[in-house]
Amino acid sequence: MTEFERIAKFFAPLAQEDPGAIGLTDDAAVISVSDGTELVVSVDSVVAGVHFPDDETSGFIARKALRVGLSDLAAMGASPRGYLICLAGGRELDQEWFRGFAEGLSIDQSVLRCPLLGGDTVAKRGPLTVSTTVFGEVPRATELRRSGAKVGDRIFISGSIGDAALGLRVLQGTISETDEAVRAYLLDRYRLPEPRLRLGTQLRGLANAAIDVSDGLISDLGHMCVASGVGSVVRTASLPFSLAARALIAADPSRLTMALTGGDDYEILFTVPGDRLATVSGLATRLNLTLTEFGEIVAGEEVLVLDPNDRPLELNVTGYKHY
Amino acid sequence: MTEFERIAKFFAPLAQEDPGAIGLTDDAAVISVSDGTELVVSVDSVVAGVHFPDDETSGFIARKALRVGLSDLAAMGASPRGYLICLAGGRELDQEWFRGFAEGLSIDQSVLRCPLLGGDTVAKRGPLTVSTTVFGEVPRATELRRSGAKVGDRIFISGSIGDAALGLRVLQGTISETDEAVRAYLLDRYRLPEPRLRLGTQLRGLANAAIDVSDGLISDLGHMCVASGVGSVVRTASLPFSLAARALIAADPSRLTMALTGGDDYEILFTVPGDRLATVSGLATRLNLTLTEFGEIVAGEEVLVLDPNDRPLELNVTGYKHY
Repeated sequence: MTEFERIAKFFAPLAQEDPGAIGLTDDAAVISVSDGTELVVSVDSVVAGVHFPDDETSGFIARKALRVGLSDLAAMGASPRGYLICLAGGRELDQEWFRGFAEGLSIDQSVLRCPLLGGDTVAKRGPLTVSTTVFGEVPRATELRRSGAKVGDRIFISGSIGDAALGLRVLQGTISETDEAVRAYLLDRYRLPEPRLRLGTQLRGLANAAIDVSDGLISDLGHMCVASGVGSVVRTASLPFSLAARALIAADPSRLTMALTGGDDYEILFTVPGDRLATVSGLATRLNLTLTEFGEIVAGEEVLVLDPNDRPLELNVTGYKHY
Repeated sequence: MTEFERIAKFFAPLAQEDPGAIGLTDDAAVISVSDGTELVVSVDSVVAGVHFPDDETSGFIARKALRVGLSDLAAMGASPRGYLICLAGGRELDQEWFRGFAEGLSIDQSVLRCPLLGGDTVAKRGPLTVSTTVFGEVPRATELRRSGAKVGDRIFISGSIGDAALGLRVLQGTISETDEAVRAYLLDRYRLPEPRLRLGTQLRGLANAAIDVSDGLISDLGHMCVASGVGSVVRTASLPFSLAARALIAADPSRLTMALTGGDDYEILFTVPGDRLATVSGLATRLNLTLTEFGEIVAGEEVLVLDPNDRPLELNVTGYKHY
């Protein structure tokens, strides 16, 4: 099967929704941007053995690659417009592999409303590398940035924190959880993050700053604080943990650190001035999504983490991502 | 040196020109598209040992990666707006490597007027992979496509053909050319292709179809013919060869096939109706760039290649790219 046959069979069907993709038959794609809007763009690479296990199925690789990219759009308050995908891999990428990969993309791009616009495939030695470029749209000058946090802002997080990091340990076997429902829930949270796209667009004009949690809650809060020139206080007692995470942390309290620093959550961390808290609460109800206040922006440059007894907690934060 | 220090030291200076890059400190970049224009986007990956030698310097890797991307914009008639770059590599990527890589980008992005907007770096085993996403702008609905060729169009190529393919053989040692000037010229054409950006924008409204020659002249003409539903006749006697290529082909006529099918030229192949030939001639003068007519679009679906004696030439065209 030549590259052209592969594109025609597996990828062109994913590109029919947007005429700007030119059916994947040209040198580039064309994106029409509505007057008064701006385009938001981001690129992320994921690598076998680093960001997902070597034996992950091609469908899940595809879906995670797309979702990780879309999470960046969510954090900027953008609505998806399309994506490009680049594959670099070896002989293991046979027809069945591509079929699964395209099926994974197909499922997620229809749910997440983000058509394929183009891509590239190259043959090479070494581990599979997938680079995804995502495009989103925002009304001009309304995009959320991580640099807007102000002293006095309350700090919120969507969903729950730590599930992915714990799920990774379950996958690696370093947490030997036996409850099948707990295993399945945590593995799913690791393999298939949920980009908070609807939340992102609703935070425009409401949040002062936003970032998606990819490196770990405390690392990414630190990135926001550096960009904003502020400090912060985190109350771990207020953090939202799933029932599964709560049980695992109760069994071994050292897992609290893992949950706070482990990364791969892809939840949205955002700050809101004190006079807009009611709007956040209404938004949570409307989206049916937990939005939890867990800290405050303060003067200075320190990220102070308080343990469940409100004593300072020392964390060794690296932000290094590994699977 | 952490990823953040590396970004601040080497890459942030490349992103100062466009405020939409947000100094590479946020989740994504913002591209403001002028009213009445469209964005053109393309992504290409290059891999060590496939698209460039394993021992290529980081500066030349950077420049070739950017130029290959910009060549796609040229073929669409777009003006560069910016680029994203993704690096996936191992321990060989030390500080000196990054310094050279950033210097290479710096040289080319100022010459080619295309600022860095964002990127990603991931650590992995195996050969270095560089993915470049480029953004260009065209007035709405004026982009050049490969699908517009019409029966009767004359076929043109910019610059000269085959230098890169011959340069690769010199680099690999399978052509043992001893003239230092010939060697240097051909190697340079292979290592540092020239994206024909000024030509591309001038071809809007003039050419019926355009494509950049990456897979090889005959392959890419074939892609254009398939997309346009036409055939073509190529007169090799009319093709533009450099003095260096001409000498090598004279010494071994089998190298003609190499020049026609070898790829990596990154010249622009375009078709023009017969009544616009004078405009092409004026354009060549204005750009000081050779634009050579070498064939014609005909009915059918065959790419008929005539040898220097106007007899049909059989070519085994694969379009497979290798260094």
